[in-house]
Amino acid sequence: MVDITFLPSNKVVQLEVGTTILQAAISAGVQVESTCGGKGTCGKCKAQVMTEIPYLTSPTEKKFLNASELEAGWVLTCQHTLTQDMTIRLQEQKDVHQRKTDFAGVVHTALAPSVRKYFVTLTRPTVEDQTPDWDRLVSSLPAPQAIGFSRSVAATLPKVLRQGEFQLTAVLDGNRLLAVEPGDTVGRCFGVAIDIGTTTVVVYLMDLNKGTVVTSGAVTNPQQAFGADVISRITHASSGSDKLRELQEKVIGGLNGIISQLCQERGIRTEEIYQAVVVGNTTMAHLFLGIDPTYLAPAPFIPVFRQAVGVEARELGLNILGIGMVVVLPNVAGYVGSDTVGVMLATEADRLPGVSLIVDIGTNGEMILTGKDRLLTCSTAAGPAFEGAEIKYGMRAAEGAIEGVRITTDVELEVIGGGKARGICGSGLIDAIAEMFKVGVISPSGRYAFEPNQLEKLPPLVRDRVRKTERANEFVLVWAENSATGEDIVLSQKDIREMQLAKGAIMAGIMILVQEMGIVPQEIDRVLLAGAFGNYIKKESAVVIGLLPALPLERIHTIGNAAGDGAKMALLSMEERARADILAKMAEHIELSNRNEFQQEFIKGLDFKGDN
Amino acid sequence: MVDITFLPSNKVVQLEVGTTILQAAISAGVQVESTCGGKGTCGKCKAQVMTEIPYLTSPTEKKFLNASELEAGWVLTCQHTLTQDMTIRLQEQKDVHQRKTDFAGVVHTALAPSVRKYFVTLTRPTVEDQTPDWDRLVSSLPAPQAIGFSRSVAATLPKVLRQGEFQLTAVLDGNRLLAVEPGDTVGRCFGVAIDIGTTTVVVYLMDLNKGTVVTSGAVTNPQQAFGADVISRITHASSGSDKLRELQEKVIGGLNGIISQLCQERGIRTEEIYQAVVVGNTTMAHLFLGIDPTYLAPAPFIPVFRQAVGVEARELGLNILGIGMVVVLPNVAGYVGSDTVGVMLATEADRLPGVSLIVDIGTNGEMILTGKDRLLTCSTAAGPAFEGAEIKYGMRAAEGAIEGVRITTDVELEVIGGGKARGICGSGLIDAIAEMFKVGVISPSGRYAFEPNQLEKLPPLVRDRVRKTERANEFVLVWAENSATGEDIVLSQKDIREMQLAKGAIMAGIMILVQEMGIVPQEIDRVLLAGAFGNYIKKESAVVIGLLPALPLERIHTIGNAAGDGAKMALLSMEERARADILAKMAEHIELSNRNEFQQEFIKGLDFKGDN
Repeated sequence: MVDITFLPSNKVVQLEVGTTILQAAISAGVQVESTCGGKGTCGKCKAQVMTEIPYLTSPTEKKFLNASELEAGWVLTCQHTLTQDMTIRLQEQKDVHQRKTDFAGVVHTALAPSVRKYFVTLTRPTVEDQTPDWDRLVSSLPAPQAIGFSRSVAATLPKVLRQGEFQLTAVLDGNRLLAVEPGDTVGRCFGVAIDIGTTTVVVYLMDLNKGTVVTSGAVTNPQQAFGADVISRITHASSGSDKLRELQEKVIGGLNGIISQLCQERGIRTEEIYQAVVVGNTTMAHLFLGIDPTYLAPAPFIPVFRQAVGVEARELGLNILGIGMVVVLPNVAGYVGSDTVGVMLATEADRLPGVSLIVDIGTNGEMILTGKDRLLTCSTAAGPAFEGAEIKYGMRAAEGAIEGVRITTDVELEVIGGGKARGICGSGLIDAIAEMFKVGVISPSGRYAFEPNQLEKLPPLVRDRVRKTERANEFVLVWAENSATGEDIVLSQKDIREMQLAKGAIMAGIMILVQEMGIVPQEIDRVLLAGAFGNYIKKESAVVIGLLPALPLERIHTIGNAAGDGAKMALLSMEERARADILAKMAEHIELSNRNEFQQEFIKGLDFKGDN
Repeated sequence: MVDITFLPSNKVVQLEVGTTILQAAISAGVQVESTCGGKGTCGKCKAQVMTEIPYLTSPTEKKFLNASELEAGWVLTCQHTLTQDMTIRLQEQKDVHQRKTDFAGVVHTALAPSVRKYFVTLTRPTVEDQTPDWDRLVSSLPAPQAIGFSRSVAATLPKVLRQGEFQLTAVLDGNRLLAVEPGDTVGRCFGVAIDIGTTTVVVYLMDLNKGTVVTSGAVTNPQQAFGADVISRITHASSGSDKLRELQEKVIGGLNGIISQLCQERGIRTEEIYQAVVVGNTTMAHLFLGIDPTYLAPAPFIPVFRQAVGVEARELGLNILGIGMVVVLPNVAGYVGSDTVGVMLATEADRLPGVSLIVDIGTNGEMILTGKDRLLTCSTAAGPAFEGAEIKYGMRAAEGAIEGVRITTDVELEVIGGGKARGICGSGLIDAIAEMFKVGVISPSGRYAFEPNQLEKLPPLVRDRVRKTERANEFVLVWAENSATGEDIVLSQKDIREMQLAKGAIMAGIMILVQEMGIVPQEIDRVLLAGAFGNYIKKESAVVIGLLPALPLERIHTIGNAAGDGAKMALLSMEERARADILAKMAEHIELSNRNEFQQEFIKGLDFKGDN
């Protein structure tokens, strides 16, 4: 066993010789960016070895690290195993998602949660009235006949009854008695709405009396260490029941971390959280519940379940009241999950007038086309391009990420946090490509301009940024002297191709839905962009690169984390929860892999065509 | 920490200095008889110290151990704490209850268990038929709409489905899907019926297809170490939630031991036991479920619950299928538990013609008087006299116990196992007292005969056995040279008094029920003696000492462990389980402590009156 210390957190773990540094970091629970899951293909898991020990630089490292980095002791943590005690400095990552946000907003849902509190005063027992404690309590509650016996509540009931001098508060979830508390605690009644994304998990701590968000928090999905996309997570889970458990524990650990922190900040005990409503894509829901997702990956993409699932929190280890219900909203199909059902709830998809296209782009892209009494859904692997993976200088929307690009006489950037750029996130990428296309740096087919007649049309400062290297054609977004890393930040021809594949798949999905409904894209009355990502995209750029149909920009709206909003609504209202089941059943899922037209539409979708 | 080794089992435990030897034995899980729970009042927790270490004999030990025992290193294990490594030899106890018995008998109940198995063959999924695994399975089962989702079954479903080539067996408990097994396993379907007595716990392993007992086993309730009677258990449980948990873990540990052994012997996996039905007195049921019994002890004797309770086995840690249901039958009142409801079921108490008295004597005595469209119950602390506690040479019905006594020209004994006597058990005690009364060794008031005119009527060999010592008047049942312990086995005046108190309480309870029904004892058409104890009692002796009303002996029947039979019936038949609820509600409980007549009847019941 050797000790490994991670800086800057100073976290120490003891592990066996032979463990990779990446695995050590995962064990220590410190954040390392890794989108390939340790395969050595993403080049993102950089760290600096602070201990003077001999090691060999691998060919993979030569590919991803420059000479000065190598000299300074930077390695890819997946490429080295532990041989002795060592200290490792990780790249500092201030994740914008980790900034705790305070919503004051009321979700516009009639407040009718399934969890209710009742303050009751009971008569004391006598030899003439030997009614058992349970019956004494229950007969004072609404619909006593329907209330089932709960061992764990009964276990503490006698003490609570007598501690509170026969005055107590009962917590009911429908007909389930969840807890008894001495005295009057009716004013304190909480729940959590949870959105489990492949990349980010978000928790909203809700006041069930008021229907408001008390506070919220988010972290990177700790499963990230096993790969950026759902397929690599499924592959890991399939390799053994302990691996499945590992993934489950990771995400629940992440959620518990947020919940503890939010509770501590607000002076709330975790046992005062009586219910959780969870949304996530189908794979995330399987992993969260510890249900084997193996057969979601190969055709015919079979999920284990589709319906809404209710499980006691203690069964999952989620840190709320042990017998509180964790409700995972229903999914539609293998790749259209409860997060999409949440989006349907939040947008009232079935009640929108005319024809609406709803697009939720994350690590996967889910599309809903609703109108003409139909609710069509499909999904495509959007590709991790939008999350920054598979793009050489790609990164998540964290501090130092380029999120906006304008090209006039030269390149102008918006960088998250306002400092020097470290890389580029999805919205920056879309902007950059749209701008490059508009000024002529790239052709409609996506190729860089190198012909003299193409180049001479470019402003001189822009022209200087187009270059051929021994490895690739590329465009320099940030010169080394202006970057946070001291190296040029570039977009390569391959990066452009990745984005083309991603947006081509999404556009093809949209076109299949449009055809299925028997309309043309111009008949779409509104486009709703869901997801944090949707909030940051410049609508014009999205249309320019052909990620969205060429529609008047005023028809395009961003709606934020609609999946999370749906979870909140289902937490606050039994009616909305019932509607989630109806929407999931109403939805007609179009399996794109089953459509001959898909390949054709996909190829059509690769080119850049510009706006109308 | 010191090591303590127990002989003859050679079990070693490591414990902290300061722990008593008795506590150490409990930790090691080796059996030590102790009926006072370590208070130093029962003198039963004898053991021999094999290590040469200095220790002081306590006054308590001087009271209970004779000089030769003290010299040989015998101690009371509750009187000494661990100071260094040591070896302790325990008294060997071959518990007759531990002899595994094989019943071939079929319980006469129409077989309709709630657990059923279904073998199904499913079609394979295709891209055209992406039905989730769960829906695919459930749609092939009866009443698919009613079947709730089970996370833990879903977790393994995909593998089981494909392992069995889409042929599998589903285990349903009503509408709950309990398990899926590859291939056809319909022939293997098991359950357990459990009877938790204050002194002995019994497990019947049942074949739910055939309705037969596969095998059964029993052990002393491991809670015994915390006291012989329910009050001492409640006192222990009340002293902290860890103590309650300790008592719960003890009894469940004991049950798990039996279950493992029975399964191993019969080649059954514990996960093939899909349900358990449990009966026990109200205190035992509370402790088994980990529910605080504190307020059962003081008046007004309030239980926490009365209804039947269903809990998943994993919540209790009972070693059957984790999500299999453990059903505890309903109780009637604080001291009339589900064991009595089991007796009602097994005897069909509500359907018996005429008037029937049913008596179940264990550590407590429960009485049922049924007839004239009423079902009356009451209970008295029978006193641990019948279990051998509080009687100087009393012991459980184990090897070496005197179980039958006849007095003619001298004393003739029946000893369990046929060897030399070590002590006397409840049935032996009743016999001994009845015989002593008949020949005139004791008077109707229970006093030993010492007047010359009384003594001269006794046969000479019997007369020699009546003696006064400095401590007490006593009767020598076994002379030292004939006993297994090398000392006289005697019944003291105090022992007689203990038995008088016990039988007086039971008779008083019977009389109150008789009066409540408005009849006289002679109107009782039949007396049913339930419980293992009932099986061993000589009916005549029971009548002679006035434990039962003076009725013709042909009206008195022994019916064995009717409580356990009731548990079996409720396991094998949903209808019987429903009847248990009805019987528990039908029963009118007569709280004796609330009756002015009780004290009067109790005093009347103390004397011996002889048969008709």
